[in-house]
Amino acid sequence: MPARLIDSFASTAALAETFSDAAVIAAMLRFEAALARAQARLGIIPPAAAEAIAAIDRINPGSLSEDARQSATLAIPFVKALTAEVRKADPAAAGWVHWGATSQDVLDTALVLMLREAQPILSADHARLKHALRGLSDQHAGSVMLARTLLQPAPPITFGYKAAGWLGAAHRSWRSLSEAFEGALQLQFGGAAGTLAAYGDRGPELAAALAAELQLGEPGAPWHAHRDRLAALVAHCGIYAGSLAKIARDIALLMQPEIGEVSEPGGGSSAMPNKRNPAGSVVALAAAARVPGLVAAFLAAMPQEHERAAGGGQSEWPTVAGVIQATGSALAAVADTIAGITVNPQRMRANIEATHGAVFAEKAVLLLAPRMGRAAAESLVAKAVHGQTLREGLAQVLTPEQLESLDHPEDYLGAAETFRRRLLEETE
Amino acid sequence: MPARLIDSFASTAALAETFSDAAVIAAMLRFEAALARAQARLGIIPPAAAEAIAAIDRINPGSLSEDARQSATLAIPFVKALTAEVRKADPAAAGWVHWGATSQDVLDTALVLMLREAQPILSADHARLKHALRGLSDQHAGSVMLARTLLQPAPPITFGYKAAGWLGAAHRSWRSLSEAFEGALQLQFGGAAGTLAAYGDRGPELAAALAAELQLGEPGAPWHAHRDRLAALVAHCGIYAGSLAKIARDIALLMQPEIGEVSEPGGGSSAMPNKRNPAGSVVALAAAARVPGLVAAFLAAMPQEHERAAGGGQSEWPTVAGVIQATGSALAAVADTIAGITVNPQRMRANIEATHGAVFAEKAVLLLAPRMGRAAAESLVAKAVHGQTLREGLAQVLTPEQLESLDHPEDYLGAAETFRRRLLEETE
Amino acid sequence: MPARLIDSFASTAALAETFSDAAVIAAMLRFEAALARAQARLGIIPPAAAEAIAAIDRINPGSLSEDARQSATLAIPFVKALTAEVRKADPAAAGWVHWGATSQDVLDTALVLMLREAQPILSADHARLKHALRGLSDQHAGSVMLARTLLQPAPPITFGYKAAGWLGAAHRSWRSLSEAFEGALQLQFGGAAGTLAAYGDRGPELAAALAAELQLGEPGAPWHAHRDRLAALVAHCGIYAGSLAKIARDIALLMQPEIGEVSEPGGGSSAMPNKRNPAGSVVALAAAARVPGLVAAFLAAMPQEHERAAGGGQSEWPTVAGVIQATGSALAAVADTIAGITVNPQRMRANIEATHGAVFAEKAVLLLAPRMGRAAAESLVAKAVHGQTLREGLAQVLTPEQLESLDHPEDYLGAAETFRRRLLEETE
Amino acid sequence: MPARLIDSFASTAALAETFSDAAVIAAMLRFEAALARAQARLGIIPPAAAEAIAAIDRINPGSLSEDARQSATLAIPFVKALTAEVRKADPAAAGWVHWGATSQDVLDTALVLMLREAQPILSADHARLKHALRGLSDQHAGSVMLARTLLQPAPPITFGYKAAGWLGAAHRSWRSLSEAFEGALQLQFGGAAGTLAAYGDRGPELAAALAAELQLGEPGAPWHAHRDRLAALVAHCGIYAGSLAKIARDIALLMQPEIGEVSEPGGGSSAMPNKRNPAGSVVALAAAARVPGLVAAFLAAMPQEHERAAGGGQSEWPTVAGVIQATGSALAAVADTIAGITVNPQRMRANIEATHGAVFAEKAVLLLAPRMGRAAAESLVAKAVHGQTLREGLAQVLTPEQLESLDHPEDYLGAAETFRRRLLEETE
Repeated sequence: MPARLIDSFASTAALAETFSDAAVIAAMLRFEAALARAQARLGIIPPAAAEAIAAIDRINPGSLSEDARQSATLAIPFVKALTAEVRKADPAAAGWVHWGATSQDVLDTALVLMLREAQPILSADHARLKHALRGLSDQHAGSVMLARTLLQPAPPITFGYKAAGWLGAAHRSWRSLSEAFEGALQLQFGGAAGTLAAYGDRGPELAAALAAELQLGEPGAPWHAHRDRLAALVAHCGIYAGSLAKIARDIALLMQPEIGEVSEPGGGSSAMPNKRNPAGSVVALAAAARVPGLVAAFLAAMPQEHERAAGGGQSEWPTVAGVIQATGSALAAVADTIAGITVNPQRMRANIEATHGAVFAEKAVLLLAPRMGRAAAESLVAKAVHGQTLREGLAQVLTPEQLESLDHPEDYLGAAETFRRRLLEETE
Repeated sequence: MPARLIDSFASTAALAETFSDAAVIAAMLRFEAALARAQARLGIIPPAAAEAIAAIDRINPGSLSEDARQSATLAIPFVKALTAEVRKADPAAAGWVHWGATSQDVLDTALVLMLREAQPILSADHARLKHALRGLSDQHAGSVMLARTLLQPAPPITFGYKAAGWLGAAHRSWRSLSEAFEGALQLQFGGAAGTLAAYGDRGPELAAALAAELQLGEPGAPWHAHRDRLAALVAHCGIYAGSLAKIARDIALLMQPEIGEVSEPGGGSSAMPNKRNPAGSVVALAAAARVPGLVAAFLAAMPQEHERAAGGGQSEWPTVAGVIQATGSALAAVADTIAGITVNPQRMRANIEATHGAVFAEKAVLLLAPRMGRAAAESLVAKAVHGQTLREGLAQVLTPEQLESLDHPEDYLGAAETFRRRLLEETE
Repeated sequence: MPARLIDSFASTAALAETFSDAAVIAAMLRFEAALARAQARLGIIPPAAAEAIAAIDRINPGSLSEDARQSATLAIPFVKALTAEVRKADPAAAGWVHWGATSQDVLDTALVLMLREAQPILSADHARLKHALRGLSDQHAGSVMLARTLLQPAPPITFGYKAAGWLGAAHRSWRSLSEAFEGALQLQFGGAAGTLAAYGDRGPELAAALAAELQLGEPGAPWHAHRDRLAALVAHCGIYAGSLAKIARDIALLMQPEIGEVSEPGGGSSAMPNKRNPAGSVVALAAAARVPGLVAAFLAAMPQEHERAAGGGQSEWPTVAGVIQATGSALAAVADTIAGITVNPQRMRANIEATHGAVFAEKAVLLLAPRMGRAAAESLVAKAVHGQTLREGLAQVLTPEQLESLDHPEDYLGAAETFRRRLLEETE
Repeated sequence: MPARLIDSFASTAALAETFSDAAVIAAMLRFEAALARAQARLGIIPPAAAEAIAAIDRINPGSLSEDARQSATLAIPFVKALTAEVRKADPAAAGWVHWGATSQDVLDTALVLMLREAQPILSADHARLKHALRGLSDQHAGSVMLARTLLQPAPPITFGYKAAGWLGAAHRSWRSLSEAFEGALQLQFGGAAGTLAAYGDRGPELAAALAAELQLGEPGAPWHAHRDRLAALVAHCGIYAGSLAKIARDIALLMQPEIGEVSEPGGGSSAMPNKRNPAGSVVALAAAARVPGLVAAFLAAMPQEHERAAGGGQSEWPTVAGVIQATGSALAAVADTIAGITVNPQRMRANIEATHGAVFAEKAVLLLAPRMGRAAAESLVAKAVHGQTLREGLAQVLTPEQLESLDHPEDYLGAAETFRRRLLEETE
């Protein structure tokens, strides 16, 4: 199922599928089936009823979304529709549908089940990105290029170090996001008041059975009114998306033809037949741009009233689905981009040379300061870079050996390679 | 077309339709048809080509959303698909599709055309809300109730005044939003660089013809990189949604059974057969909760690079569509709620009485202060309300006439009715 | 008073002053003085009391901010402190301080008074910016440069047109912001419940007198619980800041030395003595980056409970002050930057030439398509730009006249000048 | 130093101090002193110079914030001022100030040092809150009350369980925030390009010495362009603030006099002498309302250009300081509130009784359904609660024993106590 046209950059086909009507219904049915089975196993409902309930594998979305508005919960029309389906097959079973559970139990757990489907999609793309970035970093460990601060040239780095920096941030962000996924993939099951009172003293036992049935974590208590675990998932998507967007922004900037240091594959234009755009980076930036506002929306909805919110909680579904999809869209685009990127080390070196040594001014100052004082050195160097190369400007004051090495980028890389290796080690 | 299940509260059926794949394609086709016709009228392309282009009324969305990711614009695969359709019918016409236009021309204008479809949907619901609020305010001009500040009782108001306050804010917010709609419903037409250079010196003439064809406003210059008009539309949705959510919050609070002053129709629960929830208010609050973050996302994307953004601009579609849909969802829910609301003036009065006169403490101080000084009056009154009614507490210090009137809410309404009338007059 | 160090880019000295402790107290005193005077004029309090109250021109902030936390309102400790000061001078007058008013009356009106101080600061900077942009646009009406879309070269525009686009958006955004200022500069005066009941039937009369005293607008009714006018002010700051940040982003990008088309004055670096940074643009972007989140915070706080919020309303002050200061900081930085900018038309032309005619591919296609069909033309042109200039590539297929004009930017500017002039006209 | 008046609820005195001008300068001086000492120890600069640099313990903020705007960094005027101070004492030492470091090194590390000061302030308040919540939960393990969903009554819980839910969320959120603090408290030290090239091959050695000197973590590589660790700190403040605001919202709602189940100490009103407001909750909600938008601002700034941002990075200081202060303000208010809260178990029970058994409808259905089928049971129960108590309504269909127990809240608490204990165990 492709993403909606309006969401072209805000989702991917795979993730759009994950939160589609079919997926929502499948997740809700899965909860109800698992609940019935767990209840049957514990003797709470008849086994035949459980079988009849678990046998339903389709509900027509029909007017469910409109009906949901009447009760402020999708669960009511859904349970009604499910009950009707069960009744067709086994009238006696119909009375056992959703037995003792509450709307939020099925909705929260269904959301968690959908999130569990989304995780491997993201994980696969992250693995792809990580692999590509590691390769890129190793391949260009010796490709010198300008660092750029405030969009202005600074002393040299290597592209391998730059790529390792991208990797480090993406890796750390993903690791935290993975932990947040684990923390969030927990059953919600509390009944009408969060006490499971409908099951007498068997609530915790049933909750454990249900969690096992669904292969979900079982929290110490229901979390219907406490959304911190979901919030962590959403927030860490925000951080991960930020780390991805940083890569995309760098690439879009490096691909400016006046800089020309990297090039994405693809990216045509409707008006200019031969134009090549940083399409992947732009898609990633467009997707990632959605996320901070959605994170804010989730956080702002956290102060939920009492045992079930009056508005905030009901706002969460599209927020969470939107965050996951946008993050996944940015990820897919960055992974594709990195996998297909062309790097131009010649152009990188040429751009260093085009500064006529100015980016080595710091180095010159450091060489001269011990001899003449820093202020004098800075003043001398500042003059030296006007109207000539730094090397020419300092021909009279540096030794031939110093002069020779002065503007060799390889001689002013400091710990770039050390840092690069450390970053790669951290991601192993 | 019902809203997606995940968007049950974030959209309505009518607005989901407005931004559906079919609607996106229809709007884009409408632009291309109008462009071809305007060009034919000006002799820029052959009339037969224009006819062939304008004859295409369907494009299969197919893989358009995935293809859009390859070029970071939906326009390229769309124009390709349209060209293929035109070619089938008239090969000679195919070369004239999208002649001289750029991706952003069709995308921005299509968005504007979709917004134009959304406007009357919102407008009708606003009219309904306004009518219902006016009626409610007139009907309850004399229904005294507690004002509540920081959720605590304050001196009385009337429900008619409260409803007029809701109406005033909704009316002002809608009026500004309407102006923002007008400001935003403008043709975008600039060609590859915003100069319409492909049309030589006939660009402005063609732009005027195209705007006329589409019945859209014609701005002084293309706005491809300047998104302030759309931003105003989005921001005023945010304000309107905020004004609607204020109504919804008040109703949800007044409907607490311990307060019990108003009651929504509907609102069942899956676990409690006889529970009645403030369903409309909750849907409205859930919908409105989405909007501030989306507004922030739009604003954060405004600093777009040069003549077309590299990311920010491409993020706008789902943001704008999301804002309109969420606002419209909140509006529909509030309009339904107000139209069906039950007001309980007896309970309102009882809640005043339950304060035992404490909310008239200010009045008592004002009566006593001229005689004994304010500090003494405040101290006396503070003591008077403990363990007895205010009237009992002040029986010795007020005149019988003052006592009689002391805790009559009708005698301490100040300018409530004046303000109520003014608010209604402002909305005529 | 300089801005706090932590707010170096988030405010300016002048705007930090506007929301300083001294300014807060002055605005609150101004409300209380005006209230007393208006009440004295109407015979509600003794003229001597009004004089005594109005004579207080300083309150020590002392522990007011901590005390405010005890009551969730700054007004209570403030009124207490003011009463103590008045009592020192005139014990009889002390009882008339803040007579019949409520916390929110003084706080909201004080905020409005501070906003009124901020407006001319912003207005002066906007006028400076507008003037500089008009001059820049006129001066460079003929300076051809690349348009850039998705950070890639596109057909030419003029820098004058680009500057006019900046001006147009800034002008429209400012005009709307000015209207929002006007709309927001209104007295809040409602008393404990929004009815002015403490004044019997003289509330509206007193409100009119108080508004006149303060030279503020008088709304139809108190707006204590309806924040749409403030929201519009905040939101239009967001839009204006977005329009300013767009200018800043363009300049920072154009100032990349590899592009080198404009240059800011100033902008040193601590590590590189001769580096020149786009300091003004960076400050503007840093300031503007604060605004969308603050706008979202304001909007999210709009659904305020009943007649005075329990949290949302109390969150507004730092949000509004933060938005105004950040907007003003961005504005001051952009105005300074535009006023001091150096433009390099030679470099602009050179960057066009460096594309070897590729940005005229669209033009070539348009020339060739009528003869050979669009697909053939596009294919031919796409080949023509590889490994040679477009002119060389098309030497065999265009007429000498066409060839001669093919890559002259001046011959492919379309309506750039028309649009530029229209934009300037709109801002007159 | 009290918080600014405009920030009364957005900060606390202690946290305002943490980000004051004095604190900013102290942190920057601390970095420069530690850098000089570490360099002296490694023989990079003369020991006497290090001593002279480290001896400076005050810099006048003067016009630093305005000067910072000229270079888009506070570091340049700061280093200049520091150099001048050093020069006064030891001219030879002046040349060694900030030797080889870059602006971002001192700014980022200074921010980290300020955050380290803030952490124990928050930690102490969290410990206080945790202690109070544990006590409250234990004390009211048997205090039955209504659960409330969508602000409507639901089957009973205990206040002890409710408090344990608050505690659980606060505890989990704080634990994650603590980890985020640890992750963020890392030295930033990269020099002009992130390579420490100014120190030849001794960069990493110096970085380690500097980290040791400052007792900060040493990351694998500088993080100048990768802000994920700070983002995690900011985001987890957002989650923690959300968990705190949930407590505050519940209290403000429970304190409505119509509900009257808890009561805060304090909270006067300026117009109503005897009014008691939920002041602490309101302050907490006002503070927490700031946070989501600030989190969004931080996340939106993450895609920073190359090796140092052009705007995004420079926006971070007030965002981070604002988030910490607002979170700490909410925390202090909630901790005070919980410590001083009065709970009214009688009123809790009375509110259950006021539902006339309606909240036991689910229980009744569960009792009846096995006998008559669920649909019939639901229908019967729905009728039974109209116009009479549930017990009366079901007098004919339940056994005397069932009837007797039907509306005893203690008999329908399910696993409330189990869940309560588990939550307390998790926080030990």
